[in-house]
Amino acid sequence: MEKIKLIFVGFGNVGKAFARKLLHQLEARPIYRNILGNDIAIEVSAVVTTKGAYIFRGDWRSELSTLVEKYPSNVELLKRFDRTIDLDQLLRHINPNLAIVTLPPSYSNGQPNLEIYSRLIENQTSIITADKTGLAFKFWDLIERAHSREAYIGYRATVMAGTPATDLMQGVAGKEVLELKSILNATTNYIVSLIESGKTFHQALEQAQREGLTEPDPRIDYEGYDSAAKLAILLNILGYRVAIHDISRTSLNTIDDAKIREAPKKGKSIRYLATATFDKGEIKTAEVKPAELDLGSPLAKVKGNYNGIVIETSQGTISMIGPAGPAENTAEAMLTDLLEYMLWIRRK
Amino acid sequence: MEKIKLIFVGFGNVGKAFARKLLHQLEARPIYRNILGNDIAIEVSAVVTTKGAYIFRGDWRSELSTLVEKYPSNVELLKRFDRTIDLDQLLRHINPNLAIVTLPPSYSNGQPNLEIYSRLIENQTSIITADKTGLAFKFWDLIERAHSREAYIGYRATVMAGTPATDLMQGVAGKEVLELKSILNATTNYIVSLIESGKTFHQALEQAQREGLTEPDPRIDYEGYDSAAKLAILLNILGYRVAIHDISRTSLNTIDDAKIREAPKKGKSIRYLATATFDKGEIKTAEVKPAELDLGSPLAKVKGNYNGIVIETSQGTISMIGPAGPAENTAEAMLTDLLEYMLWIRRK
Repeated sequence: MEKIKLIFVGFGNVGKAFARKLLHQLEARPIYRNILGNDIAIEVSAVVTTKGAYIFRGDWRSELSTLVEKYPSNVELLKRFDRTIDLDQLLRHINPNLAIVTLPPSYSNGQPNLEIYSRLIENQTSIITADKTGLAFKFWDLIERAHSREAYIGYRATVMAGTPATDLMQGVAGKEVLELKSILNATTNYIVSLIESGKTFHQALEQAQREGLTEPDPRIDYEGYDSAAKLAILLNILGYRVAIHDISRTSLNTIDDAKIREAPKKGKSIRYLATATFDKGEIKTAEVKPAELDLGSPLAKVKGNYNGIVIETSQGTISMIGPAGPAENTAEAMLTDLLEYMLWIRRK
Repeated sequence: MEKIKLIFVGFGNVGKAFARKLLHQLEARPIYRNILGNDIAIEVSAVVTTKGAYIFRGDWRSELSTLVEKYPSNVELLKRFDRTIDLDQLLRHINPNLAIVTLPPSYSNGQPNLEIYSRLIENQTSIITADKTGLAFKFWDLIERAHSREAYIGYRATVMAGTPATDLMQGVAGKEVLELKSILNATTNYIVSLIESGKTFHQALEQAQREGLTEPDPRIDYEGYDSAAKLAILLNILGYRVAIHDISRTSLNTIDDAKIREAPKKGKSIRYLATATFDKGEIKTAEVKPAELDLGSPLAKVKGNYNGIVIETSQGTISMIGPAGPAENTAEAMLTDLLEYMLWIRRK
């Protein structure tokens, strides 16, 4: 029986949702139950947050349950977080096999996220991440360093979360891709549909903020950083070496509200799209911008918390529609990564 | 520079289409061009068919081009096929790293396909297959034996071919899947649409046969073997241990033509569906049968050479629509496998 020592880096909504899945759902998944369960077990060793490092001492299941319930509101529990231990010390002390990374994104210069990924990889600690920053800045660099250190990187949760968009891209790497068109950010898609139904951009944004749908800095959504990060990841999976800042961004609020409202009358729909076009195998354009779709297009029907991708290939059109986040879906994508990581461990 | 010695097992339309992709398209794919090209090269060493074994002696590119053009019509070329060499001898003689398998299916008892897969795996020869037989009979047995022999098995071409259905299933392994509904056989979907537009089952079947769309034995299509094999593979990817004969099949011709024709008047559409339902993580039903859909359902819109999958999860609905085969698409799925195999080789 192989044991996987696991740490959490970040413990917000997504980290907690993943902890709950680990406690209550992993063992119910058929891959674990029927294929892996007798060979591999998990043990959680630490949780690292901005409050410090919490190192598990007793039964990890009960300690993790307590953290899920009481972090960060319980003062007694917070005292158990040691602020004097930095990540390097923790890695040396615990030497974890796997880190569950749920850091907030950092799209200005990528830090401290990039540095954290580097430390983990140097330590041969595999990574399952919901944070897009590392891969949106340095996809192949991280992947190749991870491989050379025999570490796994799972990143299904970084794009569309509830829908296996990264798997889709891996599955078309042998095809001639002519165009990729996608809705990768549910928040802006919601804002657009509120504008369509009569609200101004500012009213729609305020409503989305009130409902807790935007990033803490909502420009990450409506200025296209989030979509650009995701598009960069998808293009890297296809085999291109591009980073978030290679994707051109046009803010959603550059388009007149009236234009969005009037589009349906002409059989069109404006959506905030992430698109790429290709010419002889090279990227011709890669951009995030408000753009017009035919109402009959599968992307025009993407509503609510859903995302979609349409890929034109030389042999036909592939479309995938499904839920985006939030935390529950993101955590399930990470659970899929965990199962893949376990299959990978077993093969080594 | 690592060299991959490759053999073809079977060389019909799909094998030839893959050979053309290998000759003319591999190097244009971004994963190869930008990531792998400097590290790994391919060399084709032999083609094995029912006519015997053709062993490459000179420049593999020009010999493979000749085979693509002239096999099996050219008599001089056929003389180069040695009928006295069996697969074991060939494997010992060449010791290939990778076999491109495009055998016809064998759904009665799985032979000789199962035996061929066993020989390849025993020899530590990795496999990229378009043939569903092996995996539809013994998915995890083959996968686990391959892993223990450090061989790769790529099988994207076995389901939906033009659309990454196997990737989709890998991508939802961490989710709670409640229902899977799919159109996995384009031929029967075409037959149904011909019946809808006024033809009888027999007229529709004859037309599909005339147009070369059916399997040589068309019962493989309309009695549901093909769809059942594909559904079995999808369920195994989710982590279940099921084989083709565990899937219940109801022939397409058990339903009245009139019922198919009248369905649209009631806002419905009859389709030949492969479905599975789940209860507390166990498979409740797994079947191929003619069944009614709402006209608004994404699967009701799957036409022509397209296939589709709709997965209900506890967190929402994921749908994927895209092209099925024929040979071109199947070969591109195999090219995707080849790129994944190369990434896998490089990591070892």
